[in-house]
Amino acid sequence: MSTPFECDKLIRFHHCDPAGIVFYPQYFVLFNELVEDWFNQGLGVDFARFHVEQGLGVPMASIECRFLLPSKVGEMLRLSLSVNRIGRSSLELNVSGTFGDEPRVQATLTVVLAALKTMRSLPFPDDLRTRLERYLVPLPG
Amino acid sequence: MSTPFECDKLIRFHHCDPAGIVFYPQYFVLFNELVEDWFNQGLGVDFARFHVEQGLGVPMASIECRFLLPSKVGEMLRLSLSVNRIGRSSLELNVSGTFGDEPRVQATLTVVLAALKTMRSLPFPDDLRTRLERYLVPLPG
Amino acid sequence: MSTPFECDKLIRFHHCDPAGIVFYPQYFVLFNELVEDWFNQGLGVDFARFHVEQGLGVPMASIECRFLLPSKVGEMLRLSLSVNRIGRSSLELNVSGTFGDEPRVQATLTVVLAALKTMRSLPFPDDLRTRLERYLVPLPG
Amino acid sequence: MSTPFECDKLIRFHHCDPAGIVFYPQYFVLFNELVEDWFNQGLGVDFARFHVEQGLGVPMASIECRFLLPSKVGEMLRLSLSVNRIGRSSLELNVSGTFGDEPRVQATLTVVLAALKTMRSLPFPDDLRTRLERYLVPLPG
Repeated sequence: MSTPFECDKLIRFHHCDPAGIVFYPQYFVLFNELVEDWFNQGLGVDFARFHVEQGLGVPMASIECRFLLPSKVGEMLRLSLSVNRIGRSSLELNVSGTFGDEPRVQATLTVVLAALKTMRSLPFPDDLRTRLERYLVPLPG
Repeated sequence: MSTPFECDKLIRFHHCDPAGIVFYPQYFVLFNELVEDWFNQGLGVDFARFHVEQGLGVPMASIECRFLLPSKVGEMLRLSLSVNRIGRSSLELNVSGTFGDEPRVQATLTVVLAALKTMRSLPFPDDLRTRLERYLVPLPG
Repeated sequence: MSTPFECDKLIRFHHCDPAGIVFYPQYFVLFNELVEDWFNQGLGVDFARFHVEQGLGVPMASIECRFLLPSKVGEMLRLSLSVNRIGRSSLELNVSGTFGDEPRVQATLTVVLAALKTMRSLPFPDDLRTRLERYLVPLPG
Repeated sequence: MSTPFECDKLIRFHHCDPAGIVFYPQYFVLFNELVEDWFNQGLGVDFARFHVEQGLGVPMASIECRFLLPSKVGEMLRLSLSVNRIGRSSLELNVSGTFGDEPRVQATLTVVLAALKTMRSLPFPDDLRTRLERYLVPLPG
């Protein structure tokens, strides 16, 4: 039975803008940390080695994101990630951030497996595909 | 006749990641600069005064963004902004970044006029609405 | 017996520049996280409440920093903080970052206790001063 | 007669923290832009080509910086750069930021010419050294 990958991120002073709330591009920096943590701890793929030694990356192809309620410094955000769809070389991720039972941000990220040197897409190797499938929680509808 | 607001942004070393291309959250930082420039130079509304003295802001409600081709350090990106739709207190902006005739990034940003202290939405004052309409270039369809 | 406050920070993809190493301003962002963690976990002062409710901050007055060796994505940096000197309203902190036994970065940060609204300095209250003294490890010489 | 290299930088919303003033690591990001501008416009060395094609960089070796007065969103900061000392492969830069006649930030940056692949220092080529000397304004004392 598939379950999302989750981790907690403290909203830092440096994430916040003069309005005292998270500056929205910082959510994407946090999502990037989430994907790294998912590789390292969830998928069992060392992200740094994947990147530096294998020369692979997962550049962003598209994003849809809704900012539901502002987040403030000192709040511990629960970030959650699941796989919506696995294509030949693209991957659709559902990401959400909640504070207690309050949804703050919801996003669909489409990333592509690519060789960093050429920026060409690559098909997911079978082993990685199997690992990704463990987090497959398709959205209803 | 409405035309988009445009400005050029140099892709800086600090926008780029270890793959040598723009780290995608940095596009949103550049879009934020674009909106500031649009207020200051296009709409004739001093963004800092709008923010600090009037206590107003335009927080992001939702984003859709496609990253079409990577951008590299030293490239001068032409950013373009037009208004797709003006609601009571929300505003839909079309933003794109091109290098020469190469589209790099395309986004729809939905922002809301809000009082920063309460984070409550406010209707656009008539004067601001008139200024916004000058950049109204609705997307076909 | 005073000991430094320590915590580990993973070097993230988003900390690194096109040369594949930490972009040096990101060390200061990490130092900022370190000071937050020190307040929350070391001093027992809730940093967010200190900031938002009490309207206090510790803005940076001066920095001296040496970058000894580059740090790379995936490395776990051990950050260490101790107090070098406590003035009336200023505080001198020694901060270092090491990877294994390899020193990477060494800094002296001078911060000032200030009211955020006026940006005026304030003397340390006795209770806070007592807590700060627990981390007093003056540099030799 | 040597003169400093100068350029103006607008303090952006995204440079500022919840206290409404420049988050100090952002000064270093601005200094990085200043050095890029100096290469491109002052020294006549295309920074991107220097970096990407020649594989060269000027990583930071050490910094001393004093933050004199806070800067706020909407202010146009005049940044100024001159060369204090040219070594075999290291370079000492004086950098300052002023608003009107108000000094805001003052720094000495020591950078090193290095091959990015090996991170080894290199002696300045004669041509580059000659260009650097045009900005030599040694500090008194």
